[in-house]
Amino acid sequence: MDHIADAASPQHEFRDAMSRLAAAVNIITTDGRAGRVGFTATAVCSVTDAPPTILVCMNLGSRRFAAFAENRVLCVNVLDPVQARLSDLFARKDVELDRCFAAAHWEALGTGSPALEGAAVCLDCKIVQISEVGTHGVLLCEVQGVRSKPRSGALLWHNRAYVPIQAARAC
Amino acid sequence: MDHIADAASPQHEFRDAMSRLAAAVNIITTDGRAGRVGFTATAVCSVTDAPPTILVCMNLGSRRFAAFAENRVLCVNVLDPVQARLSDLFARKDVELDRCFAAAHWEALGTGSPALEGAAVCLDCKIVQISEVGTHGVLLCEVQGVRSKPRSGALLWHNRAYVPIQAARAC
Repeated sequence: MDHIADAASPQHEFRDAMSRLAAAVNIITTDGRAGRVGFTATAVCSVTDAPPTILVCMNLGSRRFAAFAENRVLCVNVLDPVQARLSDLFARKDVELDRCFAAAHWEALGTGSPALEGAAVCLDCKIVQISEVGTHGVLLCEVQGVRSKPRSGALLWHNRAYVPIQAARAC
Repeated sequence: MDHIADAASPQHEFRDAMSRLAAAVNIITTDGRAGRVGFTATAVCSVTDAPPTILVCMNLGSRRFAAFAENRVLCVNVLDPVQARLSDLFARKDVELDRCFAAAHWEALGTGSPALEGAAVCLDCKIVQISEVGTHGVLLCEVQGVRSKPRSGALLWHNRAYVPIQAARAC
């Protein structure tokens, strides 16, 4: 039976609803004057292809946010199903970033942001605008370069659990 | 073998990369002075829960855009795997909207936007801001009400094909 929340819908009800919106799992990285930083995110979406633009949402209160704001570049690494453990590492605030990065292989594409070896797709971007919406920043990013791994699957997050989509299943 | 595109990455290369970013399939609807309109979208993401806010991207050139801009309300209907045919209908520009809406049952929640019976989640929203980015509008939406269907699955779009996630599989 359906449940209807009223206009005063509490935040936990919203978070429950959001957990039902399945989304790809990504590790967003940056490097530059403010150092090398990364975090796990599902709030990424395509905006327009003229010019190729995506957006990424992140918590303004996070210590990692400052590095993105200063470096003004990032790489969206769309994860393959075998990379769930790496997603867990980058989602934890109590793990040193050096330990997170040491758990995988990376290389810089054009912007210098770490691109993850074995990711389904890496989108190397310039951050062209940051808007503040409540607790979060919306980072508008122009894609400078793309690296894709053919025949990869996808790692989804749905109902607070990972759902692997194998390449064969996705075709 | 990886493929690296250069900074002059053509739009089709970006679109290919975007097709690898798996996303939930939604039908976005509105109703009000400018009439009842809907379209299929995957470019939806959560922004912040304080206040509960999501964003939706849509083509500014679409005739349907004007109705959203005038009505200033919308409902994000997150589809269940059995609703792929409805997604196809709302994605087509050559099908009359009346025929699209006639293919399912709808009811108005608080804002008056059509909420789809059987959807995994309906997010009833006020549009609080519209930003233009290239060819597209980014609609920032405050969630006024939530209706969820327990134990529903998810309908994903990945590699230009539907991928159904059953509820049992998603747990």
